[in-house]
Amino acid sequence: MGINEIGVVGLGRMGGGLADLAISKGYHVVGLTLGGAPRELVEAGLVEVSDIAGFREKLQPRRVVLLYIPAGPDVDAALDKLASSLEPGDIVVDGGNSYWGDSIRRHDRLKARGIDFVDLGTSGGLSGARTGACFMAGGDKDVVATIEPLLKSLSVPDGFVHAGPPGSGHFVKLVHNGIEFGMLQAIGEGFDLLTRFHEPLDLDGVLECWRNGSVIRSWLIDLLAEAHSDDPTLSKTTRYIEDTGEVNWLVADALRMEAPIPVISQSVMQLFASRDENGVWAKAIVAMRHGFGGHPFGPNASVVAERREGRVGDIYRPKTV
Amino acid sequence: MGINEIGVVGLGRMGGGLADLAISKGYHVVGLTLGGAPRELVEAGLVEVSDIAGFREKLQPRRVVLLYIPAGPDVDAALDKLASSLEPGDIVVDGGNSYWGDSIRRHDRLKARGIDFVDLGTSGGLSGARTGACFMAGGDKDVVATIEPLLKSLSVPDGFVHAGPPGSGHFVKLVHNGIEFGMLQAIGEGFDLLTRFHEPLDLDGVLECWRNGSVIRSWLIDLLAEAHSDDPTLSKTTRYIEDTGEVNWLVADALRMEAPIPVISQSVMQLFASRDENGVWAKAIVAMRHGFGGHPFGPNASVVAERREGRVGDIYRPKTV
Repeated sequence: MGINEIGVVGLGRMGGGLADLAISKGYHVVGLTLGGAPRELVEAGLVEVSDIAGFREKLQPRRVVLLYIPAGPDVDAALDKLASSLEPGDIVVDGGNSYWGDSIRRHDRLKARGIDFVDLGTSGGLSGARTGACFMAGGDKDVVATIEPLLKSLSVPDGFVHAGPPGSGHFVKLVHNGIEFGMLQAIGEGFDLLTRFHEPLDLDGVLECWRNGSVIRSWLIDLLAEAHSDDPTLSKTTRYIEDTGEVNWLVADALRMEAPIPVISQSVMQLFASRDENGVWAKAIVAMRHGFGGHPFGPNASVVAERREGRVGDIYRPKTV
Repeated sequence: MGINEIGVVGLGRMGGGLADLAISKGYHVVGLTLGGAPRELVEAGLVEVSDIAGFREKLQPRRVVLLYIPAGPDVDAALDKLASSLEPGDIVVDGGNSYWGDSIRRHDRLKARGIDFVDLGTSGGLSGARTGACFMAGGDKDVVATIEPLLKSLSVPDGFVHAGPPGSGHFVKLVHNGIEFGMLQAIGEGFDLLTRFHEPLDLDGVLECWRNGSVIRSWLIDLLAEAHSDDPTLSKTTRYIEDTGEVNWLVADALRMEAPIPVISQSVMQLFASRDENGVWAKAIVAMRHGFGGHPFGPNASVVAERREGRVGDIYRPKTV
């Protein structure tokens, strides 16, 4: 018999989207989330429980409960409650962005209590959660095989892999996120360069063109093209890049693995730089340059003027600087 | 009347592929290349000329001649010969990877002789040249408009943009190549990390999964997945990354524009590092470390052993190191 019902802990953007998708695929979905389940999900058929112990009653064994909550101690708290209330053989799947080392430890801890654990990297963003995700599973073969049909029905075609043993699903997702950061930074830098050309360019047209047939065609280029088309000055955005910090773990992993990943590491540093209003590092440099060379605090008007007139640099220096 | 015939100088991988595509689309194609035109193209209907002056006789005005030859002095030589042999109003299109500053100068020089010039960034690789490219055109409005139907018929749908004034086609292509380098480096680093996990992973499965529904889905991930599936140890490749040096120009542009592009710049540096067998920088560091701390020339066996046993770093240090 296949799995035809699931529990979901955390009905936020990812968990809620996947719950919605599962309901639309005919699954019986039991959910729990902080502040109560969204009305649309309840109206669509989601059965809400008031605490984690409720999953035991509302689901039949072999139960499958998916976690979509932020990484950290809350995951351990939820897992401990699940381990206390579920029955041996039930399967808990952490679909969030937990650290893969934690997932190995959690797998072993739950295994000792008879509960199976799968770490499930989930990609595809909000639209993926609603229409079909990309899943990277790590865990024991028989356990992953049990939930594979479920996961395949919630993913896009061929958007599922059993990557390897416990921890590997979250590791592979973490590497995916590191690649994502590098790609984002490269695209951001390139877009910045486009805006510095000495004549205006058809930026909408360029981004649209890059979506079709170019070497860099990608979902991220699609997203920038759409965002730029909606808001050509990107005035709705900020220069503060938000994130949830996972790629920091990957850089730390690389330090332990002694793996040279300068571009992924630099992407994380640029993310920090985007948030850095104080610029203490720059002030320290200004102080030292002033000390050794009497350089001014702030721009040197005559040098700026020379540059603007093209006397420093070549004739194709952009006029916008 | 639309354009129904073109000349092509350079029938190598890009020019030959586009000539083939143009013939298949019903264009009369006249070609010239070092060493003679490929037999397949002549059999397909390409009319070969023995020198650049031949384009005047074999094409009707308003003639359109595409250049697909390596950037540099050869482009100037070809342009001068074309300017001497073509008639006013004829259009020369540089489809290669010329520096955009050169393209501005070439546009102006040809304009003074009555010849129109378009700089045409061409992306999509070999498969794009054969089946439909991605074109980024820079040039005067009426001139680009004249060849737009031709270029659209040789590109994928929506894979054409008139980016802006002379030079902008090659500038936009150069930025595209910079983004490409950053994306390549990020993907390369991420793949490297995958191979360092402490247990074997289903790498083919992971790459295939990333193609479908992930945030990083892209043509470059497709290409790595295909290459890895054909050759899982990547034994057919080398650690020497070949390139034709254009992105170096972009880094130099960024220096003049004072644009911070650390990841694109680092990608170029990593490309240099891939070719660096001598490692003079590393030897210099070893010499200084030996000088101040008596550190050994080469690995310290006891430190390596401690790391391998996990006494340095955490328990998830990969066994493969």
